[in-house]
Amino acid sequence: MRVYLDNNATTIVDPHVFEQMEPFFVQKYGNPNSLHQFASDTHAPLKSAMEKIYAGIHAHKDDNVVITSCATESNNWVFKSIYFEYIITGRKNHIIISEVEHPSVIASAKFLESQGCRVTYLPINNEGLIEAQTVRDYITDKTALVSIMWANNETGAIFPIEEIGEICKEKGVLFHTDAVQAIGKLPVDVQSANIDYLTLSAHKFHGPKGVGALYMKKGKELTPLFHGGSQMGGHRSGTLNVAGIVGMGKAMEQAVDALDYEMADIREMRDDFEDKLLEIEDTFVVTPRDKRTPNTILISFRGIEGESMLWDLNRSNIAASTGSACASEDLEANSVMEAIGAAEDLAHTAIRFSLSRYTTQEELEFTLAVVKEAVTRLRGISSSYAYAPEGHESGLDAHH
Amino acid sequence: MRVYLDNNATTIVDPHVFEQMEPFFVQKYGNPNSLHQFASDTHAPLKSAMEKIYAGIHAHKDDNVVITSCATESNNWVFKSIYFEYIITGRKNHIIISEVEHPSVIASAKFLESQGCRVTYLPINNEGLIEAQTVRDYITDKTALVSIMWANNETGAIFPIEEIGEICKEKGVLFHTDAVQAIGKLPVDVQSANIDYLTLSAHKFHGPKGVGALYMKKGKELTPLFHGGSQMGGHRSGTLNVAGIVGMGKAMEQAVDALDYEMADIREMRDDFEDKLLEIEDTFVVTPRDKRTPNTILISFRGIEGESMLWDLNRSNIAASTGSACASEDLEANSVMEAIGAAEDLAHTAIRFSLSRYTTQEELEFTLAVVKEAVTRLRGISSSYAYAPEGHESGLDAHH
Repeated sequence: MRVYLDNNATTIVDPHVFEQMEPFFVQKYGNPNSLHQFASDTHAPLKSAMEKIYAGIHAHKDDNVVITSCATESNNWVFKSIYFEYIITGRKNHIIISEVEHPSVIASAKFLESQGCRVTYLPINNEGLIEAQTVRDYITDKTALVSIMWANNETGAIFPIEEIGEICKEKGVLFHTDAVQAIGKLPVDVQSANIDYLTLSAHKFHGPKGVGALYMKKGKELTPLFHGGSQMGGHRSGTLNVAGIVGMGKAMEQAVDALDYEMADIREMRDDFEDKLLEIEDTFVVTPRDKRTPNTILISFRGIEGESMLWDLNRSNIAASTGSACASEDLEANSVMEAIGAAEDLAHTAIRFSLSRYTTQEELEFTLAVVKEAVTRLRGISSSYAYAPEGHESGLDAHH
Repeated sequence: MRVYLDNNATTIVDPHVFEQMEPFFVQKYGNPNSLHQFASDTHAPLKSAMEKIYAGIHAHKDDNVVITSCATESNNWVFKSIYFEYIITGRKNHIIISEVEHPSVIASAKFLESQGCRVTYLPINNEGLIEAQTVRDYITDKTALVSIMWANNETGAIFPIEEIGEICKEKGVLFHTDAVQAIGKLPVDVQSANIDYLTLSAHKFHGPKGVGALYMKKGKELTPLFHGGSQMGGHRSGTLNVAGIVGMGKAMEQAVDALDYEMADIREMRDDFEDKLLEIEDTFVVTPRDKRTPNTILISFRGIEGESMLWDLNRSNIAASTGSACASEDLEANSVMEAIGAAEDLAHTAIRFSLSRYTTQEELEFTLAVVKEAVTRLRGISSSYAYAPEGHESGLDAHH
């Protein structure tokens, strides 16, 4: 058995999604911008895909949903446009992000910082959550942008996007949310949440890699990141990735259709799996379940290096993670655990299990058995576990 | 019969390319940056693909070939990095491009112009060619970048890249070339041509849409356009588009393998087709054949609007173009014809036929017959042809 529990990093492409993409490689390969049948062959499928994406996030027809190559592009686009529109022109000098944003947001913010922009890194509390009112405290009349992710990739923590949207609207500040971890896991409605810009990425919801989107509210157009041939209404140039867009459309339709299953059945499987993991001694989960996406568990096993656990799992063909795949080559401590204020030894013990609608009960049972065995083996050889002091020094309370 | 003669806009994905891509959607879907087998499943294919891309352009192993989402991204990246490294810092204030670059280069240059950078638009001569020495004339000690395409997308005109590279090296100016139309049609060697940055795009050489690359010579690293999770050595963040990269690698290998066929057999088919087209009265081809990519013909039929000809061709299931697909929705005059100085009526009469290794003799014969019929029909209803003055007023000599 191979068990894939790393769905916050990327997901299997749904076979129905792939089926819809397949004709656009070898058969219907025209450039949609050309003036002939090979181009027009692509128009109806592209239109249908775009309609599904608009519907999936409740975008108004006058809003812009612009196809990009990934969430990293969408996020960079927002920040670099803010630079050209507000920072270099001197109109504003400040942005606000959370300290646990995706690396593409953090790095974009740091880049703006290097260009003279002030950046506030909003703290999370000891449950890994953001309190919306702290956003209000940091906004000044020089604040150009607030960018807060809808749900955190590592803990699954859901941030109070509707409240933050309301505050930004009231204060007249642009509001961006990286919703990569929300699509297919939570209801996403850009209108009711007062969102100006929203990032999404197909490969996080069973679509293909290499395609994403940026939602822009009507009237909130950005300076293009890709100048050129006027595709996407001039917002983002470049030959359209037809197969990718068609795939993302189908994936969005399916994500919406499966949302109830995700929020009820997957949640139940996740909760049950988590209960059983927490029966293991000295395990910790930070964020309360009802404040998390239904598929995610970030759990610490005291005394066990996250990477060691990963290797044991991998030997049994189980895929999990110690945190964002976008930073995982570094083998650093989990950044969210660090932000929460966990002691360094615990920050290194976090393992993320992220389920999907493809996850089965059988897979979770198998994983549980392997985890238990690994905990025994690894704690047996762990000097930090053998000699660790008991109690609260970690900054976290043990569940057991 | 359906005939596709718009290969400069995009190409069919080679079935062998697609075959290599296919496992990376539903089966081997891991994120290459994760730490488990689903990730490592992708490592050997990615490595192999990268090796093919390096080999295809003769990059040195210490150079960087960075995967992007398309040529438009690669081109924008170069220009926007130049902005952050040289323009905003005041180190330089000038760039040089040709007046017939791809829209993504022109628009990026114009964006830099809007930010205070001076831009020289290098003219082409009446054969649609660039004289390398004019580059030398325009370089000042404040010139940050010269960006000249390797081959023009509309005429197929080959620009003197090696000479320009030599001049830039001598003058100490960075040199970028958009080689989108060169890969698979001409030998491309970044080292012998003294190129600092080179743009390529898979879908122009029978790879998939949505993936391209930027070559960067060792030591000529750019400010990232996509900041984030340190993929691609920190040069370009974002989850790797595994299927796309694998596809581009295979497509590059095949493009290199097919280069002799392209330069001999396709050229011969093209020349023969062109000879027969030029037997039609009042037809014009600007750029000499030996100065063009082997697959391209840009031909004007006096008195016939390019778009009218396209519709007639399209009715017979033949795909051609009036110019760049990236600008074709505008129905404007062909920009290269305008740059050459053709009278407006002729600039509107250009039709581009671009062949590929999939083009057959039978398809070209069929196309020739349809073109002849269309010329007769359209000139019969063309007031501009009926009343047009004879001779040289067009700025071009008729071949017949």
